Amino acid sequence: MPDRSYDFDPFHPELEELRTTRNRLLPSIRSLPLLRIGGNDRDIRLKVESLQPLGSFKIRGGITAAAEAAKAGATCLITASAGNFAQGLTLGAQLCNLPVEVHVPDSAARIKVEAIKASGAFVVEHCFTDWWNIMQTRQTENAPRGAKFIHPVAERSVLLGNATIGLEIAEEWPEVDVVIAPFGGGGLCVGIAAALQALGVSAEIVAAEVSGSAALSAALSAGGPTLIDRTPSFVDGIGSTRVLDEMWPLISAFIGRSVVVPIEECAGALREIAFSHKLVVEGAAATAYAAAHRPEFAGARITVVLSGSNIDPEVFVDLMRQRG
Amino acid sequence: MPDRSYDFDPFHPELEELRTTRNRLLPSIRSLPLLRIGGNDRDIRLKVESLQPLGSFKIRGGITAAAEAAKAGATCLITASAGNFAQGLTLGAQLCNLPVEVHVPDSAARIKVEAIKASGAFVVEHCFTDWWNIMQTRQTENAPRGAKFIHPVAERSVLLGNATIGLEIAEEWPEVDVVIAPFGGGGLCVGIAAALQALGVSAEIVAAEVSGSAALSAALSAGGPTLIDRTPSFVDGIGSTRVLDEMWPLISAFIGRSVVVPIEECAGALREIAFSHKLVVEGAAATAYAAAHRPEFAGARITVVLSGSNIDPEVFVDLMRQRG
Repeated sequence: MPDRSYDFDPFHPELEELRTTRNRLLPSIRSLPLLRIGGNDRDIRLKVESLQPLGSFKIRGGITAAAEAAKAGATCLITASAGNFAQGLTLGAQLCNLPVEVHVPDSAARIKVEAIKASGAFVVEHCFTDWWNIMQTRQTENAPRGAKFIHPVAERSVLLGNATIGLEIAEEWPEVDVVIAPFGGGGLCVGIAAALQALGVSAEIVAAEVSGSAALSAALSAGGPTLIDRTPSFVDGIGSTRVLDEMWPLISAFIGRSVVVPIEECAGALREIAFSHKLVVEGAAATAYAAAHRPEFAGARITVVLSGSNIDPEVFVDLMRQRG
Repeated sequence: MPDRSYDFDPFHPELEELRTTRNRLLPSIRSLPLLRIGGNDRDIRLKVESLQPLGSFKIRGGITAAAEAAKAGATCLITASAGNFAQGLTLGAQLCNLPVEVHVPDSAARIKVEAIKASGAFVVEHCFTDWWNIMQTRQTENAPRGAKFIHPVAERSVLLGNATIGLEIAEEWPEVDVVIAPFGGGGLCVGIAAALQALGVSAEIVAAEVSGSAALSAALSAGGPTLIDRTPSFVDGIGSTRVLDEMWPLISAFIGRSVVVPIEECAGALREIAFSHKLVVEGAAATAYAAAHRPEFAGARITVVLSGSNIDPEVFVDLMRQRG
């Protein structure tokens, strides 16, 4: 890993910048109040990013990144993404009248690739190795002059977009003790933590991971990113074989705890969110919800970030049928 | 039908009263912004009452009725209800420290009866004929001194609670052309229409009914309540064999149009709301959503009232599986 300094480390946005960023998002996102749900021995409130346009919080980072790049004079945006981020960035680019080039691995779900194309992006497919190389080097062939590469996670403007979630939580409920969010690349947790800090809210940010894919838990134990075996599951929006090296300084600065949830608990949480709280969510969101119900958070005031709702309809129906 | 005058006819609440009523509700309900959804040739926004505590808009009428009765000196509340209203009233009564007596038909779903008991009400079961008689006469045996009977539909304070939905819609989106709400007893549509009128918003209120259970459509054709055959379906929160006579003056004053939706369209709408908009709703809500997509509303600015989400989990899963 080459020693490089990134423009996002350290990440300490100020309140003013967070507010400006959020105000720019407001015409395009849904800024919903926290949904207070029952809880026998704890006070849980849901931050319902699952109802965002495009089905996830990533719209915040996508729009913010496009706007910041346009402000800096970019004439074209490039990203490497297999999923939701590409759609968010494409939407943001449209708002700024910029073209977008999205590099995807040929292993990406066809339905997602088609959605990215339909949203107006120019899509380039690669074998996984080449694609991963783009993600690591941020270099693509024949990049147009003035093009700006936007990393879906390790990018200041994307973190800034994510941070607006923390701003909204802290403004609405400054007394919150714990904010629990699913851990994928770490950008959601880091963004929220930075915003809480900017607002002087002392709540702990807790990462939620699913068993069999808990790269952060392994990194926290090892004192740094370490390779793990990953077991695929219906919780496909989070988890990896290794924490991104370039994110580690921020992650270790902001996140001290990961709760690892067994996959059966994630499934039960997904059902409970549908049947009791009437929301369709994806596995990552259910993981955070399940974590919030663990014994160690008894008595706490907890915000659960329901990060997204992009779940395959058939997977959703199958999970609904397996009633516990 | 004896000729009686009711305290709710005419129903012309003033803006001030609507605002006071809504402010009283705010600590207990979720006042969510309209969710704007895509629509090729129309602008549809969802009023998401399905996310209310207790799973339906009826919490608004229940709390309002209890508060108004307490203000008028009632020492005990009595109602006849087989469903959601009883829970809403019981919650409202708790907020006012009043006991509640709920009369239910012995045909009511056990799960609903247990939920009413669990919410703290004293429950009395009757054969259907006796229960219907209570509903018609508003008389119960051994009613405690100072008790006030609250009709779940034909009651001024309940209409006032429902009207706060119209207040919220009109304040947020005064340009709306059409508000479509499911038609059960008529209280939801009438309440909303009265609020729109109070705010000087000229939007049309349209009732949504399901085929095989469209008592309003029959009444509008006949010029008054008329008996119809009713086909039971998964859309169990609306529809009846006849419009309530005592509601007819208000209904005919406020509602000029009913859209009757085939049951298959309701099922398709319920799936679309789950898979595209990530919300679990009951059949009545899906009926209003389906109505909004009918050709006659092309080009319109439409608010759909997603009235509730109290659907049997097994029914929901079965409907999800029947993908069209």
